[in-house]
Amino acid sequence: MGALKNSIKERSSIIEEAIKEYLPMGEPKELYKASRHLIMAGGKRLRPVTAILATEAVNGDVNLVIPAAVAIETIHNFTLIHDDIMDDDLYRRGVQTVHTRWDVPTAILAGDTLFAEAFRILTQSKSNPERVVQAIHMLADVCVKICEGQHMDMSFEKMPIVKEKDYLEMIRKKTAVLYAASSSIGPLLNDCSTKVTEKMWKFGEYVGMGFQIYDDVLDLIGSKEKLGKDWGSDILQGKKTLVMIDALNRGVNIEIYGKKSATEEEIQNAVDILKECGSVDYSLKKARQLVDKGISQLDILEDSDAKRTLIELAEFLISREF
Amino acid sequence: MGALKNSIKERSSIIEEAIKEYLPMGEPKELYKASRHLIMAGGKRLRPVTAILATEAVNGDVNLVIPAAVAIETIHNFTLIHDDIMDDDLYRRGVQTVHTRWDVPTAILAGDTLFAEAFRILTQSKSNPERVVQAIHMLADVCVKICEGQHMDMSFEKMPIVKEKDYLEMIRKKTAVLYAASSSIGPLLNDCSTKVTEKMWKFGEYVGMGFQIYDDVLDLIGSKEKLGKDWGSDILQGKKTLVMIDALNRGVNIEIYGKKSATEEEIQNAVDILKECGSVDYSLKKARQLVDKGISQLDILEDSDAKRTLIELAEFLISREF
Repeated sequence: MGALKNSIKERSSIIEEAIKEYLPMGEPKELYKASRHLIMAGGKRLRPVTAILATEAVNGDVNLVIPAAVAIETIHNFTLIHDDIMDDDLYRRGVQTVHTRWDVPTAILAGDTLFAEAFRILTQSKSNPERVVQAIHMLADVCVKICEGQHMDMSFEKMPIVKEKDYLEMIRKKTAVLYAASSSIGPLLNDCSTKVTEKMWKFGEYVGMGFQIYDDVLDLIGSKEKLGKDWGSDILQGKKTLVMIDALNRGVNIEIYGKKSATEEEIQNAVDILKECGSVDYSLKKARQLVDKGISQLDILEDSDAKRTLIELAEFLISREF
Repeated sequence: MGALKNSIKERSSIIEEAIKEYLPMGEPKELYKASRHLIMAGGKRLRPVTAILATEAVNGDVNLVIPAAVAIETIHNFTLIHDDIMDDDLYRRGVQTVHTRWDVPTAILAGDTLFAEAFRILTQSKSNPERVVQAIHMLADVCVKICEGQHMDMSFEKMPIVKEKDYLEMIRKKTAVLYAASSSIGPLLNDCSTKVTEKMWKFGEYVGMGFQIYDDVLDLIGSKEKLGKDWGSDILQGKKTLVMIDALNRGVNIEIYGKKSATEEEIQNAVDILKECGSVDYSLKKARQLVDKGISQLDILEDSDAKRTLIELAEFLISREF
């Protein structure tokens, strides 16, 4: 784990520098403060680090992927700002969400600004222009799918029952395609074959799905302090996570589900029930299967430090505590 | 005027077809219905028609600009959806705004979807990839400026006094740069010289500023039925339009300014005062000057039907009744 930490640290410090370079402050100051609020509050930089590692794993030029990696992190942060408005979440990364710290109009605009900046940054890629256009197409398409996935997620809240198949399609769009873009945009910008680029896409897609399932489990079993966001908010909001879908399938009754507010004790009680009925274990197993399927896509690549780190990182995503 | 109408009709019907082609329905259905709600309700298609005319005026290939023209109209509609949330406007183009007909989360997502689709459409331009990347850079930069302009507009509402200079910078960003993109993206995608492309940009920028000043005047003196949006909402919201800035400079007192609600009679009374004190005329004159300055940029082009139509269209923008 120490080696993985160092490998990630090395790449994420490149990203931190690039974020400062590509996302400078501007005027009006309040708009730029709001738009940089979350991205400067930290975050694990998993997506841009994945973009760098994937580029190394195909023997590509890392410099060619830096703007794209920053663009992806920027898009990720844009979606967080808008999602927090839609879900009315109060905290993220241990700080107030943008619409809470400022207001809804400013948060909408802060997200829109990041979205536009992400595409402006992408145009600064130094690959041949044909590949740059393809990369922009890929990322624009991913953004459309993220919106579709977020809409599915919201509409699921109002449905009594959701099929596991539909849930998997929802997280594929909402979360996994941006991971897929992260792992394949470097190979694309480095003129890799379609076959390699597609395998790298699939790797990110499966791992991203596993990541989201695990993330939902963490929302339940993780420690409030480490998460830095509202504990149990998924239960209160009536979110159809895999844990809940499986519990509903088992006929388990969670009293506070969709009730908007509850005491910490009531939340703890709900979490205990979800653990005991086997739904947490079921979800963890599913996450593991998806990540394994993702890792098997990398068979196409020769062995390398970067490939091993990509695999370790994927394993970490479904074993982390925050 | 009949000739202008026909010239515009010809081009806008090309645009209507292209909008249908480039913005098909998708799943989830409600998200796509919401995102297409305003763009299908009509609109004057001034920006994409300008894009076609400007391309013809530089002897360019119109086919090369169609996706970009649709992308610009798509971006325009994305900004309308989000602006309507921020301003909490109820009607536009004679129909309910998206967040009124659906809800705020759906409207945020509908706008985001259009934004992403606009960039995806842009990547389908058939010009050489280097130019396509430049066009995407131009439009992404324009979107950043639109956000900055919208933020300025909102923060002006809370300020007792706004300088005319700051107001002009606000409308340049909020409105004019998208017009500038409309008139210059065709020349850019058709490999015109930097000099011509820059002149075409300036044309759109000045005309766009004149358009916005006139649009604000229309909000006051236009007929409610023809506008299809909330009458006098700018006064009630405390918007710093040029008319109001000039009236405040003259020490004129408008009682309902920033009061959120008023009777039709009170609105009419406020409008009469703004007319009588000379602020409406002052604004109309400013709009005229800006449009003239824009038109003079076209001196670089040889005479043609398209050039004449561009000029007539610019004149129309500051004389229309809706």
